[in-house]
Amino acid sequence: MNSQSRLLSFVHFLSIAVSVASLCVCVQVAHSAPPDVQVWGMAEVSFRGPQNGNPFVDVDLKATFTQGRSSFTVRGFYDGAGTYKVRFMPNAAGTWNYRTTSNAAALANKSGQVRVLAAAKGNHGPVRVKEKFHFAFADGSAYYPFGTTIYAMVHQPAVLQEQTLASLAKSPFNKLRICVFPKWYEYNHTEPPLLPFVHKADGFPDPTQPNPAYWRMLEARIMDLQRMGVEVDLILFHPYDESKKPGQPVHWGYDNMPPDANKAYLRYLAARLGAFRNVWWSMANEWDFVGGRSVEQWNELFDVLEQEDPYKHLTSIHNGAKFFDHTRRSITHTSVQAADTTKMLEWRNQYAKPVIDDECQYEGNIESEWGNITGEELSHRFWDGFVRGGYVGHGETFHAEDEVLWWSKGGVLKGESPARIGFLRKIVESCGPLEPVIDKNTRFVQTPVARCGDSFLIYLGEHRPALTGPGLLRKVFGVEPALKNARWRFELIDTWAMTQTPAPGEYSGEFTLRLPGRPYVAVRATPIRVKAARK
Amino acid sequence: MNSQSRLLSFVHFLSIAVSVASLCVCVQVAHSAPPDVQVWGMAEVSFRGPQNGNPFVDVDLKATFTQGRSSFTVRGFYDGAGTYKVRFMPNAAGTWNYRTTSNAAALANKSGQVRVLAAAKGNHGPVRVKEKFHFAFADGSAYYPFGTTIYAMVHQPAVLQEQTLASLAKSPFNKLRICVFPKWYEYNHTEPPLLPFVHKADGFPDPTQPNPAYWRMLEARIMDLQRMGVEVDLILFHPYDESKKPGQPVHWGYDNMPPDANKAYLRYLAARLGAFRNVWWSMANEWDFVGGRSVEQWNELFDVLEQEDPYKHLTSIHNGAKFFDHTRRSITHTSVQAADTTKMLEWRNQYAKPVIDDECQYEGNIESEWGNITGEELSHRFWDGFVRGGYVGHGETFHAEDEVLWWSKGGVLKGESPARIGFLRKIVESCGPLEPVIDKNTRFVQTPVARCGDSFLIYLGEHRPALTGPGLLRKVFGVEPALKNARWRFELIDTWAMTQTPAPGEYSGEFTLRLPGRPYVAVRATPIRVKAARK
Repeated sequence: MNSQSRLLSFVHFLSIAVSVASLCVCVQVAHSAPPDVQVWGMAEVSFRGPQNGNPFVDVDLKATFTQGRSSFTVRGFYDGAGTYKVRFMPNAAGTWNYRTTSNAAALANKSGQVRVLAAAKGNHGPVRVKEKFHFAFADGSAYYPFGTTIYAMVHQPAVLQEQTLASLAKSPFNKLRICVFPKWYEYNHTEPPLLPFVHKADGFPDPTQPNPAYWRMLEARIMDLQRMGVEVDLILFHPYDESKKPGQPVHWGYDNMPPDANKAYLRYLAARLGAFRNVWWSMANEWDFVGGRSVEQWNELFDVLEQEDPYKHLTSIHNGAKFFDHTRRSITHTSVQAADTTKMLEWRNQYAKPVIDDECQYEGNIESEWGNITGEELSHRFWDGFVRGGYVGHGETFHAEDEVLWWSKGGVLKGESPARIGFLRKIVESCGPLEPVIDKNTRFVQTPVARCGDSFLIYLGEHRPALTGPGLLRKVFGVEPALKNARWRFELIDTWAMTQTPAPGEYSGEFTLRLPGRPYVAVRATPIRVKAARK
Repeated sequence: MNSQSRLLSFVHFLSIAVSVASLCVCVQVAHSAPPDVQVWGMAEVSFRGPQNGNPFVDVDLKATFTQGRSSFTVRGFYDGAGTYKVRFMPNAAGTWNYRTTSNAAALANKSGQVRVLAAAKGNHGPVRVKEKFHFAFADGSAYYPFGTTIYAMVHQPAVLQEQTLASLAKSPFNKLRICVFPKWYEYNHTEPPLLPFVHKADGFPDPTQPNPAYWRMLEARIMDLQRMGVEVDLILFHPYDESKKPGQPVHWGYDNMPPDANKAYLRYLAARLGAFRNVWWSMANEWDFVGGRSVEQWNELFDVLEQEDPYKHLTSIHNGAKFFDHTRRSITHTSVQAADTTKMLEWRNQYAKPVIDDECQYEGNIESEWGNITGEELSHRFWDGFVRGGYVGHGETFHAEDEVLWWSKGGVLKGESPARIGFLRKIVESCGPLEPVIDKNTRFVQTPVARCGDSFLIYLGEHRPALTGPGLLRKVFGVEPALKNARWRFELIDTWAMTQTPAPGEYSGEFTLRLPGRPYVAVRATPIRVKAARK
């Protein structure tokens, strides 16, 4: 990097850092009245407190926010330079009273009020599970995750982060997986501008010394994404911290901190980030590849998160080779890495929760097989997974000499799948959620069929019939025999060409419907008249 | 069909029927010396015998052929019009003596000799299992099954059968699945010229009355295919005999004959066809869809076949939805219907026998999803299945107004996959069999790798890296660590374009190899120099 671009980068970084304050919905100095906050916005109360010793460890601060019979107790956190903060995400309008407890006299028994207004347009609250296998915003409005992955986004120079945000703004994605900890991995061998903890003389992170500058930067990104309508699927642990240097077992040491340090980290993280409505907790990426951590230890970490998050943010954990037991109560949905989206129904049945296949391999051309499928194939897996009643995530890994690959660093999207994913999103949002039609008497009909509002979406995938008859609707008839008497309208959807073409006329009985005879076609079938089953 | 084409068809049919006699390697009238026969040819001895009663049922005829300490006892069969025949496939040259036993005086205690010459060029004997998961001819020469499927080939008019043979002669296929019984199914609603049994007044077949004309025609086809180097995977039972006519549960009634009739049929079939060296027994197609037959009953049928076939022809049974237990002793290999060829290793491990995925769906565009994949996809499944150490079968189902679809009736090949299958066959025959490289320590490397003689064949399938390094050889290094020190030559194989392009130069260490960046590419990697492991 030459000096000019370094300066530019620094200026950009400043602009991001400075913007944090303005992005926080509410910043308050202790004892002054806080500005109004929206429902599901973030109220923040700041206090001055002790700076001696190690405030991160020594000082315990909590606040309870109360309105009528509702109350939330949240942990405060030390933000450096003698400043302590408590953040709160109200779930109802009106006045909330708060009162603190602390082992530091300067922070104990402080009280005040937060006035909360109704949610403004565009603020739908956090995403929750809806109807067992789907999601919705807290205000009831529709949310269908169309996610992408930029693991190390927040560990890149500011100028790259800004470019990434601009790319995301033009993309179809409304969910983003990012890591809290930096990543050392193929195509990821740069030192991030900021690290989550202060590092000790031996090079390892000091888990008793969070680096507030890092966390403010991370919060700024989460707010940027919130404004863009993007949910942040925040990855709390991951195994990409390996060094191959002799005598140094890890690069930074984030994936092998002591168990107590991991818990302290989660408490600090929940205190800082729990009040961001667009945050999801992904306990880990490839949890089973994180060395030396037992399932019991992972469960203890879930216990901490459960205790520290009064809002019950969406919570999951993402596998490498082995699925975690997603039946655990505090796991809200099943987060999967699996190339085979046809197993969506199996996973739904196994865990009785929504399924997101966050990594079904990526569009790209790098060496690793998880990173070199075509745009057609990734687009196909999205359609296949969605019509089987699940959700699918995107990633992009085109080899680049500058090592900026979307999947980890961001930058610009180069692939062909995002446009197709946007096309699918438009269709799902027109009628979703897609709930699969399951006809237990039908053998061999692997073609997925989903209800999509009043119509049925039949995705033919790699199959390319040139014609079809009522067999197209076999699964539908299996669950709704009365529809055998219906008349139908068909729309032919070319998922790759992104066209929706109505088939002329109406169809019933032993009809023949001509199809494009190309792979990646879907048919939207709408019954338009049902003969009375009884006379 | 107009009268002219009907005449033409009849003439063609005659030509086929007449050709039967000349196709039999040896035809003999009782008591005259039989002409010389080759090893693995068919010696046939004919006798005149009783015509009263029902000779098919009443007369029991067997013959024992002996040479030194070798002896084979085979069943004879009634061929109509007072003629009884015994057929024998010798496994060694020299003179074989035979003697008959019978409950009919005219057929009992007949004896004679058969002189057997060495096998002529092109006669490699029957196919046997070799090295647990592969096949070879009895004379040790290589045989890799590249099969196709024409279920109802022998139930078509003669002119169509001739066209089919001509198409097969130009095709890459060296194995063919055909049914003994006629087929009533979608695209299969014509009455065959000949039926295996005489039908009774009620329309059902009389299992005590085989129709010799049908069997002679079937034998002529088997001989035609033998001359072309095509193994006949003969399907003995199948469920495609359903009628939807009210009050008539089946169309002909071949799939629900009484258990004893099924056994009698197998005895007659083994007596007639057992001496054809290119015959394989496929006990059933979609055995689990044949109504009202228990696993015990299937096992009894295997018992009959085992007893009646002294040559131990290759034997299997093909599933619909449920695999038969292929561990049964007399089942020589696993015959599978499954779209997912990636399970090849699983099936090999499960049954410890060669696996042929005879139906991994067909190239075509008909409505049924098993019959409408692209040529690219079928070609891909061949490569994938072969490089995983199995064998894959072809079928073709393009919708046609005349209802002549290759998969069932034959005719002409229209698809794009046969040429690619031929390309694969050429490569396999240059170095096969393909034995998969299994590195148990390698997670996530799903790319199949097989040994192919001195080289390794790596099939990238749907993956399309634009470059690779030594990671390409990870599985190889997992089983042969010494090869980490080797220098390599690479050949890039575009399985769709059917090109083999050597990569210039030699590669070793941390090399980078540029790849086409398209799906369906294989790499053939050949180590050219191994540094000594010990000094």
